[in-house]
Amino acid sequence: MKAVIAVTLKPGVLDPQGQAIQRACTSLGYESIESVRQGKRFEVELEAASVEEARRLVEEISDKLLSNPVIENFEIESIG
Amino acid sequence: MKAVIAVTLKPGVLDPQGQAIQRACTSLGYESIESVRQGKRFEVELEAASVEEARRLVEEISDKLLSNPVIENFEIESIG
Repeated sequence: MKAVIAVTLKPGVLDPQGQAIQRACTSLGYESIESVRQGKRFEVELEAASVEEARRLVEEISDKLLSNPVIENFEIESIG
Repeated sequence: MKAVIAVTLKPGVLDPQGQAIQRACTSLGYESIESVRQGKRFEVELEAASVEEARRLVEEISDKLLSNPVIENFEIESIG
């Protein structure tokens, strides 16, 4: 089974990398780019007997390994 | 307007970070996790007169700034 997980910074958490990209856009003439937030995206291949079991497993590793729950949220974008 | 862009390593490009996470899963007892590939995810806020104009702009900055076309692919996941 394959799952895609999006990990994003919580609102209010500063994102210097995103800000740097936004400034680079402006300096290259892309002035209509107002903000950029950078997050992570994981593609996980796993063995599971059912989609429910896979979801439980992916939620567990997303919370424990793929994200930092203090500053990040995760969302399972697709699974199956 | 808001766009979400996924940047992933091309097939065949080594992903040592993803491999390290997969090994960490195994050593924590999550042996059913077979592979992990790490990519990037960008949320971009921009001003554009139409979805078409926004898409053209987002494709341009994705190619020039958000991804390295030698080793990465990008995909516009949503726009509007």
